[in-house]
Amino acid sequence: MVHSARIDRVAAKLTAARLDAIVITHLPNVRYLCGFSGSAAVLVITSRDAVVFTDGRYREQARTEVQGCKVNIVTGAPLAQAAQWLNKKVSLRRVGIEAAHLTIAERNQLHRVLNRRSSLVGAPALVERMRMVKDSAEIALIRAACRLGSKLFDLLLKKLTPGVTEATVAGELELAARKLGADQMSFPTIIAAGKRSALPHGRASGALLPPRGFVVCDFGVILADYCSDMTRTLHLGRPDRLAKQAYEAVLEAQLTALDTVRPGQTVGEVDSAARRLLKKRRLDKFFTHSTGHGVGLEIHEAPRVGAGGTDVLKAGMVVTIEPGIYLPGKWGVRIEDTVVVTQTGCEILTNSRKELITL
Amino acid sequence: MVHSARIDRVAAKLTAARLDAIVITHLPNVRYLCGFSGSAAVLVITSRDAVVFTDGRYREQARTEVQGCKVNIVTGAPLAQAAQWLNKKVSLRRVGIEAAHLTIAERNQLHRVLNRRSSLVGAPALVERMRMVKDSAEIALIRAACRLGSKLFDLLLKKLTPGVTEATVAGELELAARKLGADQMSFPTIIAAGKRSALPHGRASGALLPPRGFVVCDFGVILADYCSDMTRTLHLGRPDRLAKQAYEAVLEAQLTALDTVRPGQTVGEVDSAARRLLKKRRLDKFFTHSTGHGVGLEIHEAPRVGAGGTDVLKAGMVVTIEPGIYLPGKWGVRIEDTVVVTQTGCEILTNSRKELITL
Repeated sequence: MVHSARIDRVAAKLTAARLDAIVITHLPNVRYLCGFSGSAAVLVITSRDAVVFTDGRYREQARTEVQGCKVNIVTGAPLAQAAQWLNKKVSLRRVGIEAAHLTIAERNQLHRVLNRRSSLVGAPALVERMRMVKDSAEIALIRAACRLGSKLFDLLLKKLTPGVTEATVAGELELAARKLGADQMSFPTIIAAGKRSALPHGRASGALLPPRGFVVCDFGVILADYCSDMTRTLHLGRPDRLAKQAYEAVLEAQLTALDTVRPGQTVGEVDSAARRLLKKRRLDKFFTHSTGHGVGLEIHEAPRVGAGGTDVLKAGMVVTIEPGIYLPGKWGVRIEDTVVVTQTGCEILTNSRKELITL
Repeated sequence: MVHSARIDRVAAKLTAARLDAIVITHLPNVRYLCGFSGSAAVLVITSRDAVVFTDGRYREQARTEVQGCKVNIVTGAPLAQAAQWLNKKVSLRRVGIEAAHLTIAERNQLHRVLNRRSSLVGAPALVERMRMVKDSAEIALIRAACRLGSKLFDLLLKKLTPGVTEATVAGELELAARKLGADQMSFPTIIAAGKRSALPHGRASGALLPPRGFVVCDFGVILADYCSDMTRTLHLGRPDRLAKQAYEAVLEAQLTALDTVRPGQTVGEVDSAARRLLKKRRLDKFFTHSTGHGVGLEIHEAPRVGAGGTDVLKAGMVVTIEPGIYLPGKWGVRIEDTVVVTQTGCEILTNSRKELITL
């Protein structure tokens, strides 16, 4: 039901995009539109038809998962078979492709099979834009994933001990996630302690947790297809004054940015709210990444909450708010929540405490 | 030293490929050629120069990792900056790109910045072909990763108990891998029990291990950048006659295929050796995937060991040999080793026993 409505929405947008058909190859888009989660799939949508092409390995899975479109089990490459199918529809001249996802080799494969009558055209990001605003069922799933994330955080507090490796902490967290029902982690777990906390993407390594210093913990789960994402930074041992001040500044920047999240606001304004606060504390030059990103079927999806971003927030969007500062060779602090935009502001989905925790 | 030699080899191949430059964007290829492991990188190689472009987040990492080429820390997209750099070299007319990896949007980005004097040309898979044959240092790293895989298998035997979820078993395995030094798993761990063993890619789920039936365990680690890959299928409870026969057939097919692995043999011949054996037992129609694939910096790389494959095995290639049969709705069996091709045959790197283990 929800899937056929989604496909109908894409079909209805084709004319305005001056397309007779669109070939969807980005797998999260395929899953969003027709429910299919196999690793080989091409979904073709025209104003009259919608067909997903996959191979024999996925016959059973397609039968149980696909909704709102026909299934075509093919031998050989689904992309070539999709082109064959398009060739039988004489009226399809302008065929849209997902330029941000299709490789040149895949485009060439399509082009080789397709009649010269049809031309391949880079399509606008129709599906990515639809996916930005989540429906209530999607929000419920993301909420459940975030709730699991918060549970894991409570457990994490018991595992952070000087002398243990970052990797062991990450492994314990991931085992707990699996026991609590997560399908998998939504990205490689970051446990970055001491000097390594200054690496914005410091994947858990064999380094030992030091007796004293920050530990950045950034992790998420996938639960029923949807992702969670949260970061908390803790301190082992007693923090010095500078560390405390830095933590307070990042927290204040995060709360300030959260305050600006509401329908009608641009993502660029949310980003600059965080940046302005850190500038007041003369820490903005250490904030070296965007303030956040969309979360849903993918851990990073539209909109990007970054400097100059013009996407306008709408109720139902789910984004992260995650300012951080990183002093190379010294330490780093990041605080991140996943939030859903409501009619009047936002609701924080990752409800773990944010005051500085000293272990 | 090894990196500058690799870059020199690519540079030496440019003329034969009728290229004045090549733009390497596939990250495992970038890592192979210059050692850099960051997530944003473009490596440009000409007959005279080699430069890797990355952004400010990776300044420190590039300084410690990159060998054999210059580093250019840029603001903005590394791809656009690489194009700017190419524009300054008047003699570069035919610029090779990796068509199997570059998206259409990325190609367009390059095209927009690049002078009209230069044209973009799909390059042959130069680096993938170089990577097929591993040097002794690479083989040592893959051997170490496989040895860790075999250690994990011994541990796995203690964790497989009826009533535990597949996901918990996978989580325990992954925690042990981290404690033993693995950077991460090389792919989502497959623990597929009972009826789920009939799914060739049955990622560990919340399903309980049954009191009786096959469990397919397919897992690998990444250790110091290189992957391992192995599968063993065990039986919970007493196997019936059919299950025993099926297991023996798959094992015989695997041993037969292993016997054919030697320099000069085509990968297609290795694949058909496994398939022929299963045909004798009238089980070939249940063998629904290729016999194997290359393993190295990526878990799946060239050569593909599949039907009709014409790649010729050479000493130093590392491939998996993994026949399997899958009876939908009933059960499946797969046995997989990672092997290195030697001067006279092959050496099995995943040395865990293969006779049917009943737990």
